[in-house]
This record gives sequence, structure tokens and C-alpha cells, in this order.
Amino acid sequence: MEKREQLYEGKAKVIFATDNPDLLIQYFKDDATAFNGVKKGTITDKGVVNNLVAGKLMTILDAVGIPVHFVRQLNDREQLIRRVEIIPVEVVIRNVVAGSMARRLGLDEGQQLPRPILEFYYKADALDDPLVIRDHVLVFGWATEDELHWIETTCRRINDVLIAFFANIGIRLVDYKLEFGRLHGEVGKVVLADEISPDTCRLWDLTTGEKLDKDRFRRDLGGVVEAYQEVARRMGVTSKTS
Amino acid sequence: MEKREQLYEGKAKVIFATDNPDLLIQYFKDDATAFNGVKKGTITDKGVVNNLVAGKLMTILDAVGIPVHFVRQLNDREQLIRRVEIIPVEVVIRNVVAGSMARRLGLDEGQQLPRPILEFYYKADALDDPLVIRDHVLVFGWATEDELHWIETTCRRINDVLIAFFANIGIRLVDYKLEFGRLHGEVGKVVLADEISPDTCRLWDLTTGEKLDKDRFRRDLGGVVEAYQEVARRMGVTSKTS
Repeated sequence: MEKREQLYEGKAKVIFATDNPDLLIQYFKDDATAFNGVKKGTITDKGVVNNLVAGKLMTILDAVGIPVHFVRQLNDREQLIRRVEIIPVEVVIRNVVAGSMARRLGLDEGQQLPRPILEFYYKADALDDPLVIRDHVLVFGWATEDELHWIETTCRRINDVLIAFFANIGIRLVDYKLEFGRLHGEVGKVVLADEISPDTCRLWDLTTGEKLDKDRFRRDLGGVVEAYQEVARRMGVTSKTS
Repeated sequence: MEKREQLYEGKAKVIFATDNPDLLIQYFKDDATAFNGVKKGTITDKGVVNNLVAGKLMTILDAVGIPVHFVRQLNDREQLIRRVEIIPVEVVIRNVVAGSMARRLGLDEGQQLPRPILEFYYKADALDDPLVIRDHVLVFGWATEDELHWIETTCRRINDVLIAFFANIGIRLVDYKLEFGRLHGEVGKVVLADEISPDTCRLWDLTTGEKLDKDRFRRDLGGVVEAYQEVARRMGVTSKTS
């Protein structure tokens, strides 16, 4: 497998082609952005942590039969993934009231939800990724009814697995964002894509409530690098070069 | 039936008690507001038009078996209504892309939707009535699953009736907002409440596309009074005193 040209550079990752048209390389940067790119910075070795954390979580989900784009870890900053066409709908899974939902609905952060809430956001930077309802997704053709139903069912399975995994290492899985994609060359096959990491999750220490995620960067709480490292440490994923 | 003390004054209506605890008087003002009260003004005889238009539409819906809070017209500005506890979820029914949906999703106004879209908004002035998903309504207890399901089904029936009614008088029913309430003293009984009028609908002339609704006020298009009067005229509702 040979690395080829850069195809896309996002806020936190770069995608490269390979000599196999169905496989890509996902490179994790240290660049950090928040509020749709309004706030910018760098978090030392964030790319390494996110690569290793995302790879491990994808491996766990794959083991329970959830289709994922992740193929294998290549090195500290790169993973081999299957090429997908990203569905332009981000799913936010919420177990605890926090973040934008708390602000929009006038709720206090920290309230445990009686059951998980799945929200859909339309992936459109120019529109600030607006919250949408199910019918927007269907009527405007961003996903089919079959795809959406599969995504909803799969998100609930993923949530069960991840809540249990994080609880076991003393972390409360507050909320997180997932993206899905249509597999290149396989009609009708949707897989979990993108990443699951402290960039895309709210992770609170189960005992102290301490935030171990990107909110430390968003809200200028300090200890950003340490929080990311702590998640990697508890997950038992460590850099091969450190 | 005797008019008693004022119970509530809203942006466009005032509610009075009567000597019957289950009945109220709804008085329609000429005050106009937009953008959650940021823009204010007066539209001459708007209260009269809205009272008569809303009364007629409620009567039509009642005739097809849709439960409504409307009892009868009292005079040019007042109608007798049944007392309800308003469910804090506004339903917006959209047949054509316009207004906030066009802005939020980056769509051009005027596109006919392949099927109607129902959106829910949480009634909370301090939060600017945010768009919410079905699960927000259920998890935070603003309505029960039974109520919400009934509201959805009823909105689709209402939409069929109103599209046909307005088309028949040369008007395209673009979108509109409905509110529902729990009937005072009757457990589990939900009825259509509030009003349906040029204040709460987007109504476009079917041939010319001319706006015959509150957007003339919101967007400073002029001819506001004339637009409201034109809707009343086409509907055959006219003031008893004019």
C-alpha cells in the first residue's frame, strides 16, 4: 500500500489517496478549531492521541459487528481507512445535557437524560451546521429513509458499547458526534466514518466531573494537552515512538 | 355569558375571563411585532381581519371534525374560545420553502416541497423559540407521545383542508404556525388553539406570487393593510360594523 496525493484537508485531518482506489490514509493534525473555525489553536500531540483513540474505538465497534471505515493503524498520526462518500448529516448522541443543547433549550449542563437523544445536524460550514429534523434529511435527500433508519439503530448500538467502555475507565460519555459514509464501490453499504476522539466527544471524569475533552480548549480551561493524554492513558493507547 | 377580568396580554391578542370557567374571550389587537418583538408597529384593523379570518378557518376545520378551541364570533374583535392549557410547542407546517427554513438550510424561497414538512419549535421567548426535534419534546415532557402523534396526524388533516380552501380563492398556502392546547377540565383532550391568520401564515397569490401576509410588515414591502383586507375579502369575511 503506497501513499499518494493529498485529496482533502479539513480542520483537524488530512486525507491522502493510496494506490488502492478503495482505501485512503487519514492523517491527524494538531490543529484545533472551535465555533466553526472562529477560534484556532494547536494542541501538542492531539493528532497522535486522536489517531490512537479513534483507532481503538473503531476496532472495538468493529469487533461487535458495527461496520466502520477504519482498516488499521499505520503510525502515530495515520490510519488506513476505506473510502466513503460522507453523508452530510452529523449525528450528535447525547446522554447528558451539555453544550449547544443546554444553550438552545435553556437547560443546565450536567442533567442526566432519561434516555439518549439523537440529533441531526446538516453538514454545511456556511450555515454553521444547523440542527435539522428527520424530515429535512429525507425531503432534501441528504440520506434515504433506509439509511437514516439504519444510522439511528446503529447509533443506539454504538452508544451502548461506548458508554460501557468509557464507564469502565472512569469516564462519563456525555455526548459525541458521529459521521457516516457510503462505502465506495458497494451500493447501499453505510459505515461509521470520520473519528471518535476527545475532539468529537464530551468526556467527563466519572468521579470529579473534570472535563477531558475539547471543551478545555473551547472554554479556555487550561490543561488541554494533559486532558487528551489522560484519555489516551486510561484507554491504554500510547504512541509507538514516545 | 359575561366578560370578566383580563387574564393575559400577548403581542397580538388579549385574553379575558368570562363567568364560565371553561370559556374565555380572545380579543385581537392591531399591534404587530416581528423577530420576537424586536420590530413593532400597528396594522390598521388587523385585529378585525384576524378575528374574522381565524374564526372562519376554525369553523371550517370544526366542520370536518377537527377539535378547535373556537366557540363563536362575538364581535369584530372578539371571539369566544374554550379555555386550554397551551402546549409549549409550536408546529410550523411548510408546503413551500420560505422564511426561517430557507435561511437556516441555505435554500431559495419558493421551491414547492415534495411533501409537507412539520417542524416543532419550543415556545420560549427568552430562547427565541428554537427549532426542536421530536425527542426534545418527549424527553423534556412538553407533550406526551400520544399528544404528539395526535398533533402530527391532525396537522396533516388540517393542511389538506387549508391548502384546498386557500387554493379555491387563489391563494398558495406556503407555511403557517399552529398551536394546540389541553382542554380545561377534560383529561387527554387536545384541541387546535390560538389563531390561523395572515399573522401566522405565509399566503401568496397563486398567480402573481404577491405576498398577502405578515411578511409585508416584516420585510417593509408596503401595502400591509391592503394585503390583510384582500385575504378577508377573498374569504368573504367582512366586518359587521363597516
